[in-house]
Amino acid sequence: MARRRQLYEGKAKILFEGPEPGTLVQYFKDDATAGNGAKKGIITGKGVLNNRISEHLMLRLHEIGVPTHFVRRLNMREQLIREVEIIPLEVVVRNVAAGSLSTRLGIPEGTRLPRSIIEYYYKNDSLNDPMVAEEHITAFGWASTADMDDMVALALRINDFLSGLFLGVGITLVDFKLEFGRLWENEDMRLVLADEISPDNCRLWDSKTNEKMDKDRFRRDLGRVEEAYQEVAKRLGILPEAGNNDLKGPEVMQ
Amino acid sequence: MARRRQLYEGKAKILFEGPEPGTLVQYFKDDATAGNGAKKGIITGKGVLNNRISEHLMLRLHEIGVPTHFVRRLNMREQLIREVEIIPLEVVVRNVAAGSLSTRLGIPEGTRLPRSIIEYYYKNDSLNDPMVAEEHITAFGWASTADMDDMVALALRINDFLSGLFLGVGITLVDFKLEFGRLWENEDMRLVLADEISPDNCRLWDSKTNEKMDKDRFRRDLGRVEEAYQEVAKRLGILPEAGNNDLKGPEVMQ
Ligand SMILES: Nc1ncnc2c1ncn2[C@@H]1O[C@H](COP(=O)(O)OP(=O)(O)OP(=O)(O)O)[C@@H](O)[C@H]1O
Ligand SMILES: Nc1ncnc2c1ncn2[C@@H]1O[C@H](COP(=O)(O)OP(=O)(O)OP(=O)(O)O)[C@@H](O)[C@H]1O
Ligand SMILES: [Mg+2]
Ligand SMILES: [Mg+2]
Repeated sequence: MARRRQLYEGKAKILFEGPEPGTLVQYFKDDATAGNGAKKGIITGKGVLNNRISEHLMLRLHEIGVPTHFVRRLNMREQLIREVEIIPLEVVVRNVAAGSLSTRLGIPEGTRLPRSIIEYYYKNDSLNDPMVAEEHITAFGWASTADMDDMVALALRINDFLSGLFLGVGITLVDFKLEFGRLWENEDMRLVLADEISPDNCRLWDSKTNEKMDKDRFRRDLGRVEEAYQEVAKRLGILPEAGNNDLKGPEVMQ
Repeated sequence: MARRRQLYEGKAKILFEGPEPGTLVQYFKDDATAGNGAKKGIITGKGVLNNRISEHLMLRLHEIGVPTHFVRRLNMREQLIREVEIIPLEVVVRNVAAGSLSTRLGIPEGTRLPRSIIEYYYKNDSLNDPMVAEEHITAFGWASTADMDDMVALALRINDFLSGLFLGVGITLVDFKLEFGRLWENEDMRLVLADEISPDNCRLWDSKTNEKMDKDRFRRDLGRVEEAYQEVAKRLGILPEAGNNDLKGPEVMQ
């Protein structure tokens, strides 16, 4: 492959220039961080698994009509995506209290919330991604009220679908983080789901035992981190099996 | 148990007066009909399976905040429900072309629809449940525009969640029929999901083989009808297993 220009290196992924204008290649690393980089480590094989898991979930979401940046997986660690203008927000959907919600509001981890709650965090590492309200978001112009409406509607649909999908394989979707981006087509703009969906940014608990199957195993030194990611992929039915190791998935470039 | 008053006998279920005012007991029969009763038969064990499957799906929907009539399962064939004022519509949600949509519009069975489609049928056996449009529904007062908005929003949430849940267990949710009812609490009215959700009123296809796992096996004389219903229950993880045969489920009376 010809030398490619690296555009950005984040904590978990690297973005390269894609083969066509308007596309990028997203490379999934094994690097793991927690507490905005305060804790660093390697989870062997994580990049390969997250590449597959995110591909699978984006394809399933595409099938139910949720627009995403995903085009196709290229190889074990890379996927082709549409370049979008990232909205500088982390959109968090919560079904069960855990993590910062539990700490900040004193709600015991594991408490089912009265209804799904959406939170917004301003994507800014040097500020430690502070929580913000719709007021801040529209006042500072990070997103318009129309963008907010679209993001909420998409986030709720994604939550309903993924809650069902994970429940079907014995996993409770406790919470997860999404990123959205603006995609321009001629004069038209639409919001699409971007970044990744994987055990790096979802809390996934075994429905029967409540055992954690996500990055909290790394954050909290619970051990068997890679095994947990593998188990998620296995339950979703996407671990490459002997004789079924097709490296390319279906293409969904719209 | 004291003698109870039978209120209604339908094609698949019997309604009895419940133990408290505002409640009913829904008894699931093994009787199967197709073509509005033109074809009649028995699917041995169907009532027991549909009682369990509908309980499971209603409980999972309750957990994500979809209001339902379900209170608790009473025994193998009966469940306690809230009595509602049934809206005389069958609300059908379709993801993949099949059945009457394929026949009426000439779209080959199995074609994924460009987006999920909601259809309404007027519940009236003597008219053969004719398809109607929103125009008819609001003009004849079967539901208000506010009721319609609520039903559409609930139907779409139910579709997203159940599509995910079934996909997680290797089943494509092709289409399904819902009934909604009005529940009065003091002066307040709200719409809740009523009737049942089971292979009697869902089209469920194995995701890999597209094999039918629903009442179409009976309608089209495909054989192995009971086995298909059993397989659905098994995949959902709700067939009573040795040592786990709790006959009562959790109670969700709001
Ligand atoms: N389709 C896309 N187009 C453009 N940028 C994208 C797209 N999808 C994801 N990104 C961005 O790519 C980067 C992914 O890298 P990574 O997840 O490692 O970043 P990070 O360390 O979490 O840092 P941060 O998200 O704070 O920039 C993120 O900045 C993300 O916003
Ligand atoms: N919570 C509820 N309160 C009152 N009626 C209900 C409730 N849930 C379902 N029903 C009604 O109970 C009956 C269930 O019986 P069944 O499904 O056998 O009827 P059916 O033969 O399909 O006939 P039809 O639905 O046309 O009346 C239906 O009439 C349904 O509308
Ligand atoms: Mg990131
Ligand atoms: Mg009926």
